[in-house]
Amino acid sequence: MPRRVGRRAFLASGAAVLGGAAALGGRELLDKGPQPSAPDATGRATVPFHGEHQAGVVTPGQAFASFVALDLADGVDREALVRLMRVWTDDIERLTRGAPGLTDTEPELAAVPARLTVTVGYGPGVLTAAGREDLRPAWLAPLPAFGIDRLQQAWSGGDLLLQICADDEITVAHAVRVLVKEARTFTRVRWVQRGFRNSPGTVAPGTTMRNLMGQVDGTSNPVPGTQDDRLIWVGPDGPGWLHGGTGMVVRRIAMNLDTWDELDRPAREQVIGRRLDNGAPLTGTHEHDEPDLAAMTDLHLPVIETFAHIRRARSDDPEHRFLRRSYNYDEPPAAGELSNSGLVFVSFQADIDAQFTPIQRRLDQLDLLNQWTTPIGSAVFAVPGGCRPGEYLGQRLLEP
Amino acid sequence: MPRRVGRRAFLASGAAVLGGAAALGGRELLDKGPQPSAPDATGRATVPFHGEHQAGVVTPGQAFASFVALDLADGVDREALVRLMRVWTDDIERLTRGAPGLTDTEPELAAVPARLTVTVGYGPGVLTAAGREDLRPAWLAPLPAFGIDRLQQAWSGGDLLLQICADDEITVAHAVRVLVKEARTFTRVRWVQRGFRNSPGTVAPGTTMRNLMGQVDGTSNPVPGTQDDRLIWVGPDGPGWLHGGTGMVVRRIAMNLDTWDELDRPAREQVIGRRLDNGAPLTGTHEHDEPDLAAMTDLHLPVIETFAHIRRARSDDPEHRFLRRSYNYDEPPAAGELSNSGLVFVSFQADIDAQFTPIQRRLDQLDLLNQWTTPIGSAVFAVPGGCRPGEYLGQRLLEP
Ligand code: HEM
Ligand code: HEM
Repeated sequence: MPRRVGRRAFLASGAAVLGGAAALGGRELLDKGPQPSAPDATGRATVPFHGEHQAGVVTPGQAFASFVALDLADGVDREALVRLMRVWTDDIERLTRGAPGLTDTEPELAAVPARLTVTVGYGPGVLTAAGREDLRPAWLAPLPAFGIDRLQQAWSGGDLLLQICADDEITVAHAVRVLVKEARTFTRVRWVQRGFRNSPGTVAPGTTMRNLMGQVDGTSNPVPGTQDDRLIWVGPDGPGWLHGGTGMVVRRIAMNLDTWDELDRPAREQVIGRRLDNGAPLTGTHEHDEPDLAAMTDLHLPVIETFAHIRRARSDDPEHRFLRRSYNYDEPPAAGELSNSGLVFVSFQADIDAQFTPIQRRLDQLDLLNQWTTPIGSAVFAVPGGCRPGEYLGQRLLEP
Repeated sequence: MPRRVGRRAFLASGAAVLGGAAALGGRELLDKGPQPSAPDATGRATVPFHGEHQAGVVTPGQAFASFVALDLADGVDREALVRLMRVWTDDIERLTRGAPGLTDTEPELAAVPARLTVTVGYGPGVLTAAGREDLRPAWLAPLPAFGIDRLQQAWSGGDLLLQICADDEITVAHAVRVLVKEARTFTRVRWVQRGFRNSPGTVAPGTTMRNLMGQVDGTSNPVPGTQDDRLIWVGPDGPGWLHGGTGMVVRRIAMNLDTWDELDRPAREQVIGRRLDNGAPLTGTHEHDEPDLAAMTDLHLPVIETFAHIRRARSDDPEHRFLRRSYNYDEPPAAGELSNSGLVFVSFQADIDAQFTPIQRRLDQLDLLNQWTTPIGSAVFAVPGGCRPGEYLGQRLLEP
């Protein structure tokens, strides 16, 4: 049946934009046997697990993310970590290709990979438990305290991190459950932060996400696959076990939308230094135009204000850059409040001290945006490199 | 430019399955000017607001829902309710066609309607505040207490309900914010429950959702547009102000996935009376095969057990039926727990006492599923009929 084989291969290729044709294809396959919830094109799309790097770092942002921080149970040592990492590696490899986890009790929920990626990060506690503190990069430690911080323990720290992203929230919920369950004798959940962007297919592919302040958020970012790669991935200068890995910052930043909404539009555009309609810098017309920080108005005032977020978030040093991959959060408001919204700010960089901290310090010193945003959680993780078939995540740290 | 007009009309028709072609169409439109986040086909799809019934009842389930219960502030009377309903009607009409709310401070977030529907429900408190208690249907009251209930005030009751559904979570978050803000002088938020199903395009259109126990959930449901309509919509027998409206039950039901996962597959299938792989009844092969409750095994035991959920959820009386439109929830687990998952169970019926309560009573008496599920919230609302241009929601109650 060459035609059916052809169609299967076509569907399996998983181009996420094929909705119409694949919908029919899916139904056709469905009629051959009892396989409902058969994924449609967007559901069938997968991101390869094996490789030099873990997926979920330079992967174009999926619609949903769960960030699960876990603490190691007392007595978890290097050997226990090896066991956990073997199990997780195996499960992640399966789940990301749409197969059930090894002991998956809801295998049907695994059938829609929807570009699932699982990215594993290590807090300082993993190196301690593994007896490998000598291999800890200096930046794998809590960030310095900043004046703007109002950190809550409930959203901070953690020995291990799972960043679980997919274009389907059922897929994310299922993967979280499988992986947390497999880890239950070794860990307990410390915090979970869930985030979202636009759903697959609701905006044109490649559209930069908007945050809940209404801004286009994520425009100016290093470009993976270019020279910028050195900013993202740990190279020969970093600890050997982290080659091909990266450093990860997760900060929960609350937005005060009530006071933000009182500002008029021009003021809100000046706070960032970009237009609200299309994200263009105030000195340009298109989103990706380069901001001209030197441009002056007729009155000899800077077009992009001295306090503007994008001016403050840039330094003269081109090494002070990192890959932002944030998600929106929106949770039920506290009593008497209208909303509880913000950003799960996520950045990836080869060296947090050298790249991220200088910019966070600049923003701490001056950034008008601070008037409406408050960091309420903060955590730092080392994300080991990817692995080849037969290897497991973190092997180069745990069994060098 | 007949070609472009044609394409626009085509996109506006909003068939949500056109991903591929429309993705290109979207980009083409985009290049005409600064309008990023321009919705793609799935984002552009709209559900008409005006009509005999409110949208969001028989509308095929969107991917996300927020259920926002509000309490009326002291002193809110009929006139204040009229003002609120006028404002909400206006905003809902705008938002659901992809236009910003009247005082929308983040208009860009309104540009992706993604089948947004907003369904407004009245708790008993609205009738009291409006001085219309005489018009309260008997069923507009808390449900009777059931033995299985472990209700928490935090998830129960409410004077007003907004059910806000769309295929994009940013759209939902924005609509919630706009409507809650417009109501802030009249109300305060009592609870918010968010729920999800598969994302648009990840499973074939028309696929029944799965819940987090892994079951196909929603198969046996009245069919809108048939004789079943009398089960859903309040007809001439009901209170006049509710003609074309419906009664709504919202129950938060926690799942104990840890104990559920200990059951083997055959046992789990017997608990429901349906197969896990495709949702077919244990007496059939396809999802929509009619269950044969009389079928016996060779050993003269019922194939569908006496305690099975689908046997218990049916009664001999064909009036004991209602439209289920539930969503999954998955929240961060409490300390020491692995997960916090369940169902935001939602049902619509013309008469809650006559249709829903007898079934909930049957399930309270016997339903093996109760071993793994616990109702922790419960609320009841009257959903007024829809409105025509120029009218506002609830007008027939507030200004008869
Ligand atoms: C809720 C908090 C925040 C909001 C709402 C926010 C929003 C934005 C927006 C709208 C832009 C312009 C578009 C873009 O290039 O992405 C931007 C740029 C940027 N933000 Fe933030 N941001 C927040 C927090 C942070 C934090 C904590 C950092 C790092 C410490 C940061 C670093 C940057 C950088 C590096 C840029 C690019 C600047 C450039 O090169 O033009 N932001 N942010
Ligand atoms: C977490 C709680 C619940 C779960 C997991 C659940 C699950 C299911 C499943 C898997 C089915 C079979 C497929 C289908 O027809 O949808 C079903 C059917 C049904 N359920 Fe539930 N259910 C729950 C609570 C309830 C409640 C509270 C009610 C009403 C009081 C209810 C009423 C029904 C009805 C009427 C049917 C269709 C029975 C038939 O005609 O075959 N369910 N449920």
